[in-house]
Amino acid sequence: MSDNPSKPLIDVAAGRRPADLVLKNAQIVNVISHEVYGGDVAVFQGRIAGIGAYQADKTIDLRGQFLCPGFIDAHVHIESSMLAVQEYARVVAARGTTGVVADPHEFANVLGAAGIQYVLDTSEDAPIRVFVMLSSCVPASPLETAGATLDADSLRGFLSHPRVIGLAEMMNYPGVIHGDLQVLEKLAMCHNRVIDGHAPSLAGFELNAYAAADIMSDHECITADEARDKLRAGLSIMIREGSQTRNLKALLPLVTLATAGRFMFCTDDKDVRDLLDEGHIDFMIRTAIEQGMDPILAIRLATWNTARYFRIPRLGAIAPGYAADFALLDDLKSCRVAQVYRGGELVAESGECIAPRTVTSAAPADGVPKSPGRKSVNIKKLSLDDMAIAAPPETRDGQPPRIHVIEVLDNRIDTERSIEAPLVRDGRLIADPSRDLAKMIVVERHRASGEIGRGFARGFKLNAGAIASSVAHDAHNLVAVGVDDRDLLTALNRVAELQGGWVVVKGGQVLAEVALPIAGLVTDAPARTVAANLHTLTEAARALGCPFAQPFMCLAFLSLSVIGKLKLTNLGLIDVERFAAIPLTVATDDVAPVSNR
Amino acid sequence: MSDNPSKPLIDVAAGRRPADLVLKNAQIVNVISHEVYGGDVAVFQGRIAGIGAYQADKTIDLRGQFLCPGFIDAHVHIESSMLAVQEYARVVAARGTTGVVADPHEFANVLGAAGIQYVLDTSEDAPIRVFVMLSSCVPASPLETAGATLDADSLRGFLSHPRVIGLAEMMNYPGVIHGDLQVLEKLAMCHNRVIDGHAPSLAGFELNAYAAADIMSDHECITADEARDKLRAGLSIMIREGSQTRNLKALLPLVTLATAGRFMFCTDDKDVRDLLDEGHIDFMIRTAIEQGMDPILAIRLATWNTARYFRIPRLGAIAPGYAADFALLDDLKSCRVAQVYRGGELVAESGECIAPRTVTSAAPADGVPKSPGRKSVNIKKLSLDDMAIAAPPETRDGQPPRIHVIEVLDNRIDTERSIEAPLVRDGRLIADPSRDLAKMIVVERHRASGEIGRGFARGFKLNAGAIASSVAHDAHNLVAVGVDDRDLLTALNRVAELQGGWVVVKGGQVLAEVALPIAGLVTDAPARTVAANLHTLTEAARALGCPFAQPFMCLAFLSLSVIGKLKLTNLGLIDVERFAAIPLTVATDDVAPVSNR
Repeated sequence: MSDNPSKPLIDVAAGRRPADLVLKNAQIVNVISHEVYGGDVAVFQGRIAGIGAYQADKTIDLRGQFLCPGFIDAHVHIESSMLAVQEYARVVAARGTTGVVADPHEFANVLGAAGIQYVLDTSEDAPIRVFVMLSSCVPASPLETAGATLDADSLRGFLSHPRVIGLAEMMNYPGVIHGDLQVLEKLAMCHNRVIDGHAPSLAGFELNAYAAADIMSDHECITADEARDKLRAGLSIMIREGSQTRNLKALLPLVTLATAGRFMFCTDDKDVRDLLDEGHIDFMIRTAIEQGMDPILAIRLATWNTARYFRIPRLGAIAPGYAADFALLDDLKSCRVAQVYRGGELVAESGECIAPRTVTSAAPADGVPKSPGRKSVNIKKLSLDDMAIAAPPETRDGQPPRIHVIEVLDNRIDTERSIEAPLVRDGRLIADPSRDLAKMIVVERHRASGEIGRGFARGFKLNAGAIASSVAHDAHNLVAVGVDDRDLLTALNRVAELQGGWVVVKGGQVLAEVALPIAGLVTDAPARTVAANLHTLTEAARALGCPFAQPFMCLAFLSLSVIGKLKLTNLGLIDVERFAAIPLTVATDDVAPVSNR
Repeated sequence: MSDNPSKPLIDVAAGRRPADLVLKNAQIVNVISHEVYGGDVAVFQGRIAGIGAYQADKTIDLRGQFLCPGFIDAHVHIESSMLAVQEYARVVAARGTTGVVADPHEFANVLGAAGIQYVLDTSEDAPIRVFVMLSSCVPASPLETAGATLDADSLRGFLSHPRVIGLAEMMNYPGVIHGDLQVLEKLAMCHNRVIDGHAPSLAGFELNAYAAADIMSDHECITADEARDKLRAGLSIMIREGSQTRNLKALLPLVTLATAGRFMFCTDDKDVRDLLDEGHIDFMIRTAIEQGMDPILAIRLATWNTARYFRIPRLGAIAPGYAADFALLDDLKSCRVAQVYRGGELVAESGECIAPRTVTSAAPADGVPKSPGRKSVNIKKLSLDDMAIAAPPETRDGQPPRIHVIEVLDNRIDTERSIEAPLVRDGRLIADPSRDLAKMIVVERHRASGEIGRGFARGFKLNAGAIASSVAHDAHNLVAVGVDDRDLLTALNRVAELQGGWVVVKGGQVLAEVALPIAGLVTDAPARTVAANLHTLTEAARALGCPFAQPFMCLAFLSLSVIGKLKLTNLGLIDVERFAAIPLTVATDDVAPVSNR
């Protein structure tokens, strides 16, 4: 909304020229003056001209419906929806969202700068406004191999794009705290812009150092105490309610009228089913109100606060000159969205997006194809031997070897760790369903390097078969878990054949699959189709014994080497606390405790 | 505060390197988290490194004093203090102010762009941070002659200066509302920056048009209802408490925890005596608290809110990375300022600025002298005849002529109007002290054009003599009021001789004077000297019969042709409501009512 002041808009506001549209008899939710009052809202060329008795080409009587600014998601990885940008926009638009601030971190990890460009290009005609923060940590870790490396110079060119705001979540907080020069260069590049943070559990001197480095926000708070510390340190707090990580109820007690100016709502990662079932930012507003928050305040956190934090002028309020982005509610408390306007155009009603499905026609200036990630899975041909783990020699005392095991936790992206004596057969370590010890394989998939990480994970409770995925944060290599080497191979091969996706295999047969052909991360299929397929997929995994609500989300975070105790990447088993790769076999002097299970 | 993230600062914050200074045992007023709590604040290279148990080269025990962010004036014309920039900064620094956002409108009206440059140059080494908004309306009116005309192109070059924020109060609200293209060009020039408004009493469609033109604030509200309307229209509200215009108590009821984010404090115009006697922003905080406002909230309006509105990063809070600008209070409620730090340096204590008096050494790059306004009064030699007003011929019905009279109001910048039959002697209209009809003269003083406006004003109650001034908003021509032509001439000549100032004359003798040799607006004399001289001056005016608390402030606004009913400029009598010059003599068909007085 950085248009020049427009003489025609001023003419309309002054009453010298008719508006395009008047929305009559609205109950206006004014998040600036913290009031709700009746009025008629005049719209001209996508912006609000004024509130008052205006003449217009078209008048719609709202009969007392509540007119809110359209909702804004302060931080989202669209990729986590499994949907292409346009389809994602349709789903959230139906829920009253008219703007999101996206970090294309997953696309960027697979496709590099082309992934950022892809989001900018494909959101050009979207029914919502898609603002972009530049992914700051690609790759996220030196302990896995991503598809690209983005340094400050790779990102700088994007800063001139009108929808690029600043630097996305700086996950490399150790790098910030220790003054890593490449990290500081990225911060310096955006020091007059907005810089988002990501600082789970950071406190004390480390939090001070992180805040002193010009980082402005955090969306990783899980307790009110943690959020209070960060608020005191000057950070704005994005309250997150995604599919897996749900912090809203824990943080709400900290949000009072006195502190509210520094809070926003975000989803971070929310998948298509949860978006369709629960909703998006509307779900957060509704929940906050149920928990006792003043409805105007809840709406302010979802609109005005976000626009101000990101310094997006003329967005997030019902006032002259502001974007005519509206969520219309029949009832303020339930936050059920009846209609949605974006730039003065009706884009959704009764929970359905009615904007025409546009195919992004604008050919990108640099000739990058629209979906640059259609061929993103690039692996060496896999064989059954690639699945095998050779048994180590017996240890000195004659005991069988002991190995590190990743303990997977339901609905969590961190992990615990344990030590087990594995089953050995024919000189190889194999899965042991009786102790829920599944084999886990990670295959580097960007450069066909042939790098394969192998380990064991407990929690999936598979009694047969395997599941595999091309979504594996943050480098998005191929990852599989299974109790049968042939099924592991079949599942990984099928994912590669699909050029990305999620697959459930048993007895050599693909039981269910969801293709994710764009960067191996998302699909351009319609949202409801994807949701239905995901349901079938989850049921298939459940038939193998998996108790997790979202087996593939659990799988997708088992390679994320920056959180939890133990993870597996293409470079092998990662001790997250030591930030180093370690052997699968426990050294005799290893101090890690043996599991009591 | 737009420095790059600094590795050394991060090192200090992380505890790897000692701080320059630790302020120990502070009660920290955290305007972000809306709390007061104990802590130690570490400072390094002018910024806050962190709060915690830091090592430092120097430690000061605050013994529980309250540590606030330094106060910020959101809108001020420094010229109204009568002090040069450096001296003004010393006076307000002593009151806890560490930053002001200045509109050098008066200097610009006399000196043009050189006046803006003068403020930037002379504030370089000031004990406070002086930010500048570019004067948007020079001249303020086509109905008087200023020293310069500043169009968008004259201002554009200043936008690259690190302390220039945006466009100052857009007083030409009719121009905005009617879409005047020159006005829109200035707005467009700053449309991604901050644009301040000035919209007295604007409402309805006109207010909508003004807000739709990207104007972001207003400091002219005099009632809570007016402020509510503007708040609803999306404008931020600067609550003003100056020398003459005092809106604080009227507007406070609108400021609640729910709305507070959109309010700031400003003084606009406050003279040296009031600054010394009452204080500056500290006075507003103190008054707001006395009126029942939460002290943390009052301090937030004076710090954080202002920095956020103006998008000045890392200013206005006690948090890592923020400027180490502090006001230390012994007691939160009384807001008595014990010590003041600016960029980590102690600049004031016990109500006195202790920063060294610096002479701005930096020679401006463009060769403009440091005080470009030392010879700003440029008039043709005046004679007694220049003071004379020829009587018009008798009217048709044989009655004596009737004239328009400016009715001056104490402590107001607007005026009323009346019609009187003047005294006539020797074919000339003369003053009539018995009816408090004084003669008023305005002499163009920028280009020696010889233009003189002549009229009559009532309210000064002079029984003898004359007073004259080179401060006459906004064009700052010479203005005098008196009941004796010789004294008028003497007073005007003395002001010209001083190259600006305020003069009281009786019987051909100068009874008192204050020289204002810089642009005819301010002096570089010490504040207390100026205040003492002003006291003597006011006493001298009082001895002539003037009942006004501030006779010269009243005089200074009698040429301001954009507010009130009737004013006098070098172009003659101005009917403000018709926005046109009118003859002194009442036409027979004039509908203006005869005064009942």
